[in-house]
Amino acid sequence: MLSKENNERITRVGPGTPMGQALRRYWIPALLTEELPEADGPPVRVRLLGEDYVAFRDTEGQVGLVWNHCPHRGASLFFGRNEENGLRCVYHGWKFNRHGACVDMPNEPEESSFKDRVKVAAFPVVEQAGMIWTFLGPEGEAPPFPQMEWMNIPSFVSKSYQKSNWLQAMEGGLDTSHSSFLHRQTDSIGKSFDPKNLRARAGNPKLEVVRTEYGFRYAGVRHLKDENQNYVRAYHYVMPFHQMRSHQGWSEGRPTVQGHAWVPIDDETCWVYNWMYLRSQEPLTHEEIETEERAFGRHPDDLIPGTYISKQNAENNYLIDRAAQKSGLTYTGIHGINTQDMAVQESMGPIYDRTQEHLGTADLAIIQARRLLLEACTDVEQGRYPLGSQLAEVPVRAAEMLIPADQPWYESMKDELAARW
Amino acid sequence: MLSKENNERITRVGPGTPMGQALRRYWIPALLTEELPEADGPPVRVRLLGEDYVAFRDTEGQVGLVWNHCPHRGASLFFGRNEENGLRCVYHGWKFNRHGACVDMPNEPEESSFKDRVKVAAFPVVEQAGMIWTFLGPEGEAPPFPQMEWMNIPSFVSKSYQKSNWLQAMEGGLDTSHSSFLHRQTDSIGKSFDPKNLRARAGNPKLEVVRTEYGFRYAGVRHLKDENQNYVRAYHYVMPFHQMRSHQGWSEGRPTVQGHAWVPIDDETCWVYNWMYLRSQEPLTHEEIETEERAFGRHPDDLIPGTYISKQNAENNYLIDRAAQKSGLTYTGIHGINTQDMAVQESMGPIYDRTQEHLGTADLAIIQARRLLLEACTDVEQGRYPLGSQLAEVPVRAAEMLIPADQPWYESMKDELAARW
Amino acid sequence: MLSKENNERITRVGPGTPMGQALRRYWIPALLTEELPEADGPPVRVRLLGEDYVAFRDTEGQVGLVWNHCPHRGASLFFGRNEENGLRCVYHGWKFNRHGACVDMPNEPEESSFKDRVKVAAFPVVEQAGMIWTFLGPEGEAPPFPQMEWMNIPSFVSKSYQKSNWLQAMEGGLDTSHSSFLHRQTDSIGKSFDPKNLRARAGNPKLEVVRTEYGFRYAGVRHLKDENQNYVRAYHYVMPFHQMRSHQGWSEGRPTVQGHAWVPIDDETCWVYNWMYLRSQEPLTHEEIETEERAFGRHPDDLIPGTYISKQNAENNYLIDRAAQKSGLTYTGIHGINTQDMAVQESMGPIYDRTQEHLGTADLAIIQARRLLLEACTDVEQGRYPLGSQLAEVPVRAAEMLIPADQPWYESMKDELAARW
Repeated sequence: MLSKENNERITRVGPGTPMGQALRRYWIPALLTEELPEADGPPVRVRLLGEDYVAFRDTEGQVGLVWNHCPHRGASLFFGRNEENGLRCVYHGWKFNRHGACVDMPNEPEESSFKDRVKVAAFPVVEQAGMIWTFLGPEGEAPPFPQMEWMNIPSFVSKSYQKSNWLQAMEGGLDTSHSSFLHRQTDSIGKSFDPKNLRARAGNPKLEVVRTEYGFRYAGVRHLKDENQNYVRAYHYVMPFHQMRSHQGWSEGRPTVQGHAWVPIDDETCWVYNWMYLRSQEPLTHEEIETEERAFGRHPDDLIPGTYISKQNAENNYLIDRAAQKSGLTYTGIHGINTQDMAVQESMGPIYDRTQEHLGTADLAIIQARRLLLEACTDVEQGRYPLGSQLAEVPVRAAEMLIPADQPWYESMKDELAARW
Repeated sequence: MLSKENNERITRVGPGTPMGQALRRYWIPALLTEELPEADGPPVRVRLLGEDYVAFRDTEGQVGLVWNHCPHRGASLFFGRNEENGLRCVYHGWKFNRHGACVDMPNEPEESSFKDRVKVAAFPVVEQAGMIWTFLGPEGEAPPFPQMEWMNIPSFVSKSYQKSNWLQAMEGGLDTSHSSFLHRQTDSIGKSFDPKNLRARAGNPKLEVVRTEYGFRYAGVRHLKDENQNYVRAYHYVMPFHQMRSHQGWSEGRPTVQGHAWVPIDDETCWVYNWMYLRSQEPLTHEEIETEERAFGRHPDDLIPGTYISKQNAENNYLIDRAAQKSGLTYTGIHGINTQDMAVQESMGPIYDRTQEHLGTADLAIIQARRLLLEACTDVEQGRYPLGSQLAEVPVRAAEMLIPADQPWYESMKDELAARW
Repeated sequence: MLSKENNERITRVGPGTPMGQALRRYWIPALLTEELPEADGPPVRVRLLGEDYVAFRDTEGQVGLVWNHCPHRGASLFFGRNEENGLRCVYHGWKFNRHGACVDMPNEPEESSFKDRVKVAAFPVVEQAGMIWTFLGPEGEAPPFPQMEWMNIPSFVSKSYQKSNWLQAMEGGLDTSHSSFLHRQTDSIGKSFDPKNLRARAGNPKLEVVRTEYGFRYAGVRHLKDENQNYVRAYHYVMPFHQMRSHQGWSEGRPTVQGHAWVPIDDETCWVYNWMYLRSQEPLTHEEIETEERAFGRHPDDLIPGTYISKQNAENNYLIDRAAQKSGLTYTGIHGINTQDMAVQESMGPIYDRTQEHLGTADLAIIQARRLLLEACTDVEQGRYPLGSQLAEVPVRAAEMLIPADQPWYESMKDELAARW
């Protein structure tokens, strides 16, 4: 449970808010590469932390991310002409390059130096592994870009739109015990090493949390009485909104590592970025990607065309099938693992009121994440770098394993938790 | 006319508001029986007095009404599994019975006593005559359930959604003179004892209001010069938002008693509950119900499927037919008696500004209702029971009659105004 | 650039706001004649300066403009019956004539004098040349009606709905340099005297502004090097929101004068009224009107049927065609001159934040208009008539001309800038 004050402090992300200021100290996913497929193609709108931007890919193939409004009289640069290494506002023809410099101002006298005194705010960009990142903090203070394993080996990325505050989305992702219930499916019972079955068999994991320089490592330890074994699922939380998790996947013998970043669009909506790769670092096949994305409910066929919005959403009760829920075919009657997450998280209200909650031992990871985030707010207020913001790499990966009950799990899994690149 | 302060005081119903606190001292209709047709069926959303609840019918056929948000981490129980005498949150499997007790908490250690310390707020329920009622006031302080005639004999109930504050809806219902205008139809002129004709002939009733222990009794007395008779329509207002009225009905010689309850969903929307029965207490035929409900514009065919929202609504100007209005076929050009009410009442704005109004002698019943409601606010603020809230029965019915002009009406109608059960 | 305070002061128009009070000192377009085509026809809703009204044409063919809410209990008079020289509220039959007097009150006793003490607020109306104007200021203080040339000769009028504050719409209209960019079209290059080509060739006009008793006269002077000539476009800004401009039109040798009035519906939406006539004062042909209105994107075929809302709007990115934009067929990829204006102006946000802008020499007319409007606010606050509000006529017209570079343009154009009626 949080006080009303801390609930405001930790959830709101607009300019000038404590958490907004803290998040502006990290590199942030802005969009997918697929949204800017070609040089000099149409610009796109980007909304992050409650503010509006426009992104474009220039003639050199580099991405520019600039303030939405032309500095002249405020027309949106979204309607701009993406021309020879610059975006030109259609209102009066002012043109800006990807660094924000005004390189043409044709409605003013040729001899005028006004052009040299005008800039549009532009932000640094890193594009890697299918995603475009930016740093929205003070100019010139961008930290090193935090490399992670998935960015440096063959991986797959996608994203989903969610109509809730980012924090309740992220808390749902950090939460390990919910997967035993929310995502339970009848047809998964009975396979040999089927984690969903293992989870269903032991719905009350013991949580262990260890603080690190990037955030924290944690595990959900599920005791399986019959086998006298523990089923251990070990995760990483990477500040400020990333998570790494293990996933056996739907492809026999080809386990994956997967993860999310929950990126605030504004106080009441967020992007859920998704990535995955094979533990073996072999490329995923097209079929594997299709199967996974459909299972998660985030395949293009699951989305309203031209958007990243699920066809199953709050307006239609996520197309809940009460008969399927009743029969137990799925626990919720809602298709898609991530759609199930979205349904419960959005149902908490736009910004969940944490003064009303009742946390148990299964919520330890969530409690720790909040502690680190509130600490980050204070750090930034007091002029310190927040946790993890200066790291050039986060060389860890997630894992899951069956381990004899009398054996300490971390020793057994240590090697599996190190990234390989 | 009300002051700005009293207009706020009397219309707003959220938790902590004066009227909200007063209304939370009465039994309130929550939904229709038809909305929860079967044991262990899908739960439904209920919004009342600005707050959100979930209702479900358990294995024993009893209705539970609980707070919308799971006390754990706030997922809506609407998505819950309605299982063996309890509603189970799909997020982590916590299960609550209809009394709000947590009867299963499978994601916490088996030995944990956390479960015993967690409750979801649950509210008492009475189900009778097709309606489900609740008491939203302090736990354990529910008064006797107020029996009325329509609940104890064969009757018919329905409901309609209205996009306005409840008070202006109720004031429109209490108002007797508007029926001479708003609901006038050409085709009703000329029948023998046709009340609509009588009303059209004498549009300016004299109002008489008498305070009672349940609210007030009142009559609109219409003088018919030619016959030297009075056409008297006698009503009851039952605190806090009920009305009983007489209605000759469309079935010759089978007059009805009808009524409404105007139940606040929140400050800007309300449910209009409708009930009717034959004065003879014989059951209404299927055809009579169909005819009445269509005439009122609240038959299922008049509604957007799957809702209680009229197909004729503010978005489409209630499908007003200006030619029909011009010709006088109907006075408004709008189909449906209650749709006509809804049109004018919604057109007053979400919460009507009563500082702007000009009340006349025809508005006496409205003035008296406001007086009692403001009195109820003060009573509750000062720790007293508000008027009518402790009654176990309200044994009255409404009536209408033609009476010689020189004869006191109440003497003639007294017997007709007593309930019979 | 404006301070935050002045930006609020100059944009907000509700009752009691400084600009709202100033605008209530001028005659204001309320609707088009075509919206009230017949005596005793259906009334229509009118929203102006953040308040709601109802207009009707009575039996004598005169237009009444009254407050939206019936003074009795607030039902909207929009649903009223337009009967024998009066609008009758359908709720209780109260009837008001176009002057606001209550001429029938049938639900009160016949002998009652209540009727004589009740009025609905009614506003003076002038109907001329296809438009209906009103004065929303204090009763009895309406100034002379300001005659202009287009109202007194054969002309054509239309209107468009815009989802932005009126001021940024008007600023876009006053702005002369944007036409060289926003409205550029490839197919206009190469005609003999083609103003669009001239504008494209010299996108940086020198602005000259002269204050007048009605507002100001201004010109954009474009120097054409090759010919050693100036292409001069001279305009009038008429307080508080009118503009007159010259337009060669699409009909060879039949130049027009055109203009707009940007009328606030409320703080975040406005009507753009459009008018045009031939400089020769001959009537426009049907074909000329069709051609012009289509080119501007405001032909009935461009609108959502039954509304003045463009089919191309913010919801669909104005149906931007990025390929047409890329090829330069049009500069924006958006069809329709005025739709292009609407796109950039709406993209500035509902109320543009002028603390962020960077004005140049091309923005001189905008700067002057703001100065006069802020002055008008102060004048009204201090009990003075604001500029231009007492004029009975504004006898000017706009013009454009090619003038040898060494010749003072005003001398050459003076005669062309005088109205002829």
